[in-house]
Amino acid sequence: MELEQIVENAYYESVTGVRTGDTKNECREIRRYIRDAEEIVIPNHNEEKVVAINEVLEEFGLSQAKHLQIHTDACDLSRMPAMTKAIMALDICSCDLVIARGRLGIPGSGSILVILDKKGRILTASLSPPHIVHGKPVSEAVRDEMTAALERIGFTRSRGKSE
Amino acid sequence: MELEQIVENAYYESVTGVRTGDTKNECREIRRYIRDAEEIVIPNHNEEKVVAINEVLEEFGLSQAKHLQIHTDACDLSRMPAMTKAIMALDICSCDLVIARGRLGIPGSGSILVILDKKGRILTASLSPPHIVHGKPVSEAVRDEMTAALERIGFTRSRGKSE
Repeated sequence: MELEQIVENAYYESVTGVRTGDTKNECREIRRYIRDAEEIVIPNHNEEKVVAINEVLEEFGLSQAKHLQIHTDACDLSRMPAMTKAIMALDICSCDLVIARGRLGIPGSGSILVILDKKGRILTASLSPPHIVHGKPVSEAVRDEMTAALERIGFTRSRGKSE
Repeated sequence: MELEQIVENAYYESVTGVRTGDTKNECREIRRYIRDAEEIVIPNHNEEKVVAINEVLEEFGLSQAKHLQIHTDACDLSRMPAMTKAIMALDICSCDLVIARGRLGIPGSGSILVILDKKGRILTASLSPPHIVHGKPVSEAVRDEMTAALERIGFTRSRGKSE
């Protein structure tokens, strides 16, 4: 089933008041979309974060991401810096998936890693506290975020286990 | 320092390329804003979630939230249902803080709890996997999310500990 159909079905459930939450099938379709993604981009100017994300993608048997080296400082001036960065990447290049990591909201609000599909729809995400709270090296924080973003929608490291 | 000043300072740091991440002072100001908030609203039509959030607010020595009972099904038709719900609440009533919990992105993407200030700026958030993945009762999931949203910006249960 295409994501469009998933969204439309949930729309009718919400409109008719019968929606009771995410279904197994919806999660499975998100995983399928991510697994089928061939062109993945990471907008950033920090190679270290790209390496960390690609290590996790490999562990989960997913395609490697390309580093889209763009100036993302302007995104920090928006209300949702990480989301803005992801959408900026989407509008600049052709891809199946964008993985962007940046600030969640106002300065001090910590970071979010978001995964968007080719239309800019949010498939999954994960959060980290501000660095001064968690104190992890950036590479470890990004690894943990990428892992959490995949695991929360049912991915497991062993490719065979999650449909 | 007002949040406006925090945002403006970070803006100049980003523009001049010297920004190195969230600072202790920024986190402290977010906590101060939340601690000073008197009117807190939770848009929802599920009393159980409001009770769970208020229990956590009490544990952290924060003001209790009012239940803003509105129809939020329409928000599920947007790209970021929880954010849309929070902004809808903000536009309907006068408050210092909105705490909204709902779907993160497309159906199957799990949930996010977001905390916005009186202008709609994101102060903090937390995520849960889809219910069919985590399997927790909704009340427990909401308690955990509310706790995580506060702890990630440096709040501790004992009021005195975090400035």
